[in-house]
Amino acid sequence: MSFTYTRKINYYETDMMGIVHHSNYIRFLEEARCALLEEQDIPMSYIEEKGYTIPTIEVNCKYKTPVTQGDIIAIGVKVAEYNGVKMTIEYDVKNTKTGNTVIEAYTRHCFTNKDLKPVNIRKHDEKIDSKFLEMAVN
Amino acid sequence: MSFTYTRKINYYETDMMGIVHHSNYIRFLEEARCALLEEQDIPMSYIEEKGYTIPTIEVNCKYKTPVTQGDIIAIGVKVAEYNGVKMTIEYDVKNTKTGNTVIEAYTRHCFTNKDLKPVNIRKHDEKIDSKFLEMAVN
Amino acid sequence: MSFTYTRKINYYETDMMGIVHHSNYIRFLEEARCALLEEQDIPMSYIEEKGYTIPTIEVNCKYKTPVTQGDIIAIGVKVAEYNGVKMTIEYDVKNTKTGNTVIEAYTRHCFTNKDLKPVNIRKHDEKIDSKFLEMAVN
Amino acid sequence: MSFTYTRKINYYETDMMGIVHHSNYIRFLEEARCALLEEQDIPMSYIEEKGYTIPTIEVNCKYKTPVTQGDIIAIGVKVAEYNGVKMTIEYDVKNTKTGNTVIEAYTRHCFTNKDLKPVNIRKHDEKIDSKFLEMAVN
Repeated sequence: MSFTYTRKINYYETDMMGIVHHSNYIRFLEEARCALLEEQDIPMSYIEEKGYTIPTIEVNCKYKTPVTQGDIIAIGVKVAEYNGVKMTIEYDVKNTKTGNTVIEAYTRHCFTNKDLKPVNIRKHDEKIDSKFLEMAVN
Repeated sequence: MSFTYTRKINYYETDMMGIVHHSNYIRFLEEARCALLEEQDIPMSYIEEKGYTIPTIEVNCKYKTPVTQGDIIAIGVKVAEYNGVKMTIEYDVKNTKTGNTVIEAYTRHCFTNKDLKPVNIRKHDEKIDSKFLEMAVN
Repeated sequence: MSFTYTRKINYYETDMMGIVHHSNYIRFLEEARCALLEEQDIPMSYIEEKGYTIPTIEVNCKYKTPVTQGDIIAIGVKVAEYNGVKMTIEYDVKNTKTGNTVIEAYTRHCFTNKDLKPVNIRKHDEKIDSKFLEMAVN
Repeated sequence: MSFTYTRKINYYETDMMGIVHHSNYIRFLEEARCALLEEQDIPMSYIEEKGYTIPTIEVNCKYKTPVTQGDIIAIGVKVAEYNGVKMTIEYDVKNTKTGNTVIEAYTRHCFTNKDLKPVNIRKHDEKIDSKFLEMAVN
């Protein structure tokens, strides 16, 4: 399954180097994840209404070429691994104008209840589980 | 009552102009407010444990001279008005090296319960009320 | 002249109250300003290439009703005053689902060169000046 | 060489989960790095005055236990590898109250000139090079 989230870089996301501060890409990845879930009809608001949340347990980000205010990035995002307990999401981020790779990244997640206790979403919510399964297979 | 909160400017708080992004000062004001409450023995964690929170209902900030990464600012903070329902806090922010005024600001707040419904803190919590009263008088 | 910028609230823009942190709205205003300039064919990247920038010298924001992750806001933005040296921009932000006013705000700006020295843009750049004049009149 | 940077968690650094948003830890790591450089008498402001900067080329962060507003974290930071061209910095972040590990992380960096072109700092600046060498050895 292929999903791409596109967004423009804001002025406030730059730093005194004149480029996007490296911490902000971690936020862009979250935007792309949330857009993917929304496109799959399980937006974060739905998941949290059902009593679950999806904390991030690892982030890895390799910075290749910088972007700055006004640039547009396309974030390709896919579920690389999913077993009901943990999940790995991979990202490939490109500058839409130059085609250059901006960053390569992955994030790992678990599923928890509202008290941040880990749950096996497979045993708790069939719709959410089946959506993630489907994304991971394709 | 005079209280001053001092902090250093971080690299990630600058933008491509080479100076602190104007939105970040609003965060520094919150830091100073929280430090004041902590110094008064009613830290935000205590107030939230008691079931209340203190949303911001207005911010006004006049930017005078910029600061950048590594600079140190001293935020003078005082409770200018308080009546149990609303509160005004005033701030005077100086560059500790140059003595220049960096910003002048005020924030207005109300008191709410956990559901963000307004409460008169005077009728709900004597300790919190007396602390704010004392700060406002002095 | 009427211009509206629409955007979705991100998860990372919320705080532990469960709503958008008040400092983030200041950033959304900047997004709306930049979108307006881009729509007028004078994007910030153009203005900075010409050697100018537009620092914020005052922010005033009144918070009316909160929004949270997944909500969509529409930011109406207009140039209320402009004289080549200073400019006031006004914003009216609504929750697109409920129609509620989220915030009411204005920002004031000056024009500077790259060294952050104030300039009268009217005397320096006819295109930029005429664009702001046109926006302010309409 | 052992260096620890301690800081308190701000309210605005939390998200609607009630804990620090995962992107913010990347910023805390930068704070710790900058504090280390300052303690070594080569603060970022000095390095940038000399014409260099130190972009981040990779971030890896494993999230172990969350912290929230008012908590205090101690960031142990050390230069794990350095060869004049690239550098790896490792971080061990603990909750000072509970002793729990909050995150484990590393960041990789290169050295560039003002135009973000890579340089071998060993061939360009003896003082900066010797400081990093000394940190890496100890």
